Amino acid sequence: MKFQKILIANRGEIAVRIIRACRELGISTVAVYSEADKDALHVRLADEAYCIGPTTSKDSYLNITNIMSVATLTECDAVHPGYGFLAENADFAEICESCNITFIGPSADAINKMGDKSVAKQTMKAAGVPVIPGSDGLVENIEEAVMIGRDIGYPLIIKATAGGGGKGIRIAEDEETLIKQITAAQQEAQKAFGNAGVYLEKFLTGMKHVEIQVMADNYGNAVHLGERDCSVQRRRQKLVEESPCPVLSPEVRQRMGEAAVRAAQAVNYSGAGTLEFLLGPDGQFYFMEMNTRIQVEHPVTEMVTGVDLIKEMVSVAEGNPLSFNQDDVVISGSSIECRINAEDPDRNFMPAAGKIQFYLPPGGPGVRVDSAAYQGYTIPPYYDSMIAKLIVWAPTRDEAIAKMKRALSEFAVEGIHTTIPFHMKLLDHPTFNRGDFDIKFLEENEI
Amino acid sequence: MKFQKILIANRGEIAVRIIRACRELGISTVAVYSEADKDALHVRLADEAYCIGPTTSKDSYLNITNIMSVATLTECDAVHPGYGFLAENADFAEICESCNITFIGPSADAINKMGDKSVAKQTMKAAGVPVIPGSDGLVENIEEAVMIGRDIGYPLIIKATAGGGGKGIRIAEDEETLIKQITAAQQEAQKAFGNAGVYLEKFLTGMKHVEIQVMADNYGNAVHLGERDCSVQRRRQKLVEESPCPVLSPEVRQRMGEAAVRAAQAVNYSGAGTLEFLLGPDGQFYFMEMNTRIQVEHPVTEMVTGVDLIKEMVSVAEGNPLSFNQDDVVISGSSIECRINAEDPDRNFMPAAGKIQFYLPPGGPGVRVDSAAYQGYTIPPYYDSMIAKLIVWAPTRDEAIAKMKRALSEFAVEGIHTTIPFHMKLLDHPTFNRGDFDIKFLEENEI
Repeated sequence: MKFQKILIANRGEIAVRIIRACRELGISTVAVYSEADKDALHVRLADEAYCIGPTTSKDSYLNITNIMSVATLTECDAVHPGYGFLAENADFAEICESCNITFIGPSADAINKMGDKSVAKQTMKAAGVPVIPGSDGLVENIEEAVMIGRDIGYPLIIKATAGGGGKGIRIAEDEETLIKQITAAQQEAQKAFGNAGVYLEKFLTGMKHVEIQVMADNYGNAVHLGERDCSVQRRRQKLVEESPCPVLSPEVRQRMGEAAVRAAQAVNYSGAGTLEFLLGPDGQFYFMEMNTRIQVEHPVTEMVTGVDLIKEMVSVAEGNPLSFNQDDVVISGSSIECRINAEDPDRNFMPAAGKIQFYLPPGGPGVRVDSAAYQGYTIPPYYDSMIAKLIVWAPTRDEAIAKMKRALSEFAVEGIHTTIPFHMKLLDHPTFNRGDFDIKFLEENEI
Repeated sequence: MKFQKILIANRGEIAVRIIRACRELGISTVAVYSEADKDALHVRLADEAYCIGPTTSKDSYLNITNIMSVATLTECDAVHPGYGFLAENADFAEICESCNITFIGPSADAINKMGDKSVAKQTMKAAGVPVIPGSDGLVENIEEAVMIGRDIGYPLIIKATAGGGGKGIRIAEDEETLIKQITAAQQEAQKAFGNAGVYLEKFLTGMKHVEIQVMADNYGNAVHLGERDCSVQRRRQKLVEESPCPVLSPEVRQRMGEAAVRAAQAVNYSGAGTLEFLLGPDGQFYFMEMNTRIQVEHPVTEMVTGVDLIKEMVSVAEGNPLSFNQDDVVISGSSIECRINAEDPDRNFMPAAGKIQFYLPPGGPGVRVDSAAYQGYTIPPYYDSMIAKLIVWAPTRDEAIAKMKRALSEFAVEGIHTTIPFHMKLLDHPTFNRGDFDIKFLEENEI
């Protein structure tokens, strides 16, 4: 079926991104917003917009009842969840389907299988996807943990199975700390996630965060669209992403891509998804987790492949087979994305919400801006601090870096602090320019 | 030699475009501006900026003495003339060279050979480039004109050899009007251009304006980069351009491209140039003129080829050979450009200078904005009314049209009238959507 109207259960730049795709597809859009977001750009750009509750996310963007009421009353055919908020909420996906409204994403079952990190690891291992050496599922008791430690060696990492995004993680340097930490980690996990399950993994060093974009349809077809290097992270938050990864060999790229497709097919995946891997200097890679949604950094993949991932998500959700096959995917040139946050890099990235007094995004060839900001807009302090994604494309990585520096230098955001000066310095760093940085790069280097 | 510093002898979006390219290349930029342009974006973005005279173009942007003074005093290696103003002034090119400053463009000799339209036509004919049937050079007297009329048939078009851009043109429907018009045309040409020379051409109907982009270096290499269909014109002013031309067959494209390369080589051309042709419904094409400079509509070629034409112009002027050869040029997808003018389409496109109260250009995938506008900027009434070029790219023409409509719909320019509503209507016109419009399309259709 061809969708007539889609509700976008999100805010900010990703809501704007989805509205743009829908408009190009001739599909009407319904925006939802919290009381704090009445002047937001996604509200202005959508064909219809409805307030779904007060400022607190729990009462608005996470308020399934209100969102479903709007979707039903406005006769939406489908809901696009964007990223964050309800995007990986299997219950929400199920409720949508039970209301006869298509959830633009994978099935609740696939979300669940990937949402539990320990289950996901088992599934991936069974599908022949390399996983980080560690416990076979959850660790039952201290004795088992000690055995594993002697088997695979230290340091070890203790992870909560219900965690994610870096939460619920502890490092054990030796057997003594492992014994101490394991019980503490279980208690902490119980408290934080309502699930005491923890598992062990070898703690690897010198690793890059490299992820593979996949697209799959409802007919068993799955295709990989190259990788993104997201190793530039601060406190496990990605700040800069690029495609292709500057140090990946074609052979490893091929193997990672094939592993990602196997992973997607193992859970009957449908829609856009991302397999996150750790990549070692030796070319070995290990499954970390799968994000069962569109990601913030999807534009760099769009720039090097020419594929519009949001449109393809909509098409797949409408029941169409993938519009391309593996041979159609050609990676061309180099793309970099900088996340521009309303934060003060000189004051430890303190959030810097406030009113934008002057705003002029960069333009010209090879420059893309995905943003919900505008001159006169007051950034509310309640949500994500990202105010724009600046994405560039050029034939080579060196040219892309030069273009990003040019674009950052002319990006005018006055009235608030932003991370633009941080990015300018980062792009001049010799390690960044060489491309062989790992996920500890920002931790170990003063930018 | 590698340029260290370039003076940009222009204003508006093309000055900004050139500054962007230079910054990406690591070349410093010197802007020049008239008194009316002190708040212009090109002044803000350049590394240095100097006032070169009062508002009147003659006293500022056409003031060779002042421009050369700035170029010399700031120790520029080169001057980029953009389009308009001094871009096709052979004297300026010669003066630059005599001051040991590189003119980023072809030689004065090539500019001269193409500047005189009648000479250019002779040169092209000799190079085997198809030309419109007509007089062999200038028409000496009425008797010769009558003979030609009997030979090639009516209607005929009388053109001033020193004219261009649609100026100095008359139509003769029959022998009687020809006799009357020929003397009048000569007198008018003498008065307007200081050169009474006129020539005759067959008046063709159902023609498209299709032009070929060429790039050539100082070593005799010349490459064509596909065509642009610029048939959407109002009073001979292009309003919308696209690449590829929606009705051009691969065979005719190939023949036009080869003719364009022959044309460039016939005048030892160097740099970026455009061969403008009339293309008939039968696939026959005829040389009109060559623009010996970068053109307003160059971005659509950049979007479908991935080549940065401004950077390549700089590289060629530095003495490098072309960075690509003919086989490297691959046309991919479809690109459209809409010229957004500060004009009121509801009042016969009356210029509508004034202050921009709110400005938010569109963003997202496949959207490029080349503009010198910003919120709070007062558009001076003295120069070109174009305030932005909106360029889109998509895999197919239909998708590009949908994307352009989306981008136009979110392009916010408040406080002045613009041609955005005109473009919205144009893009919905069935003839535009079919793609088989000719240069009379806007004359013959109410948009």
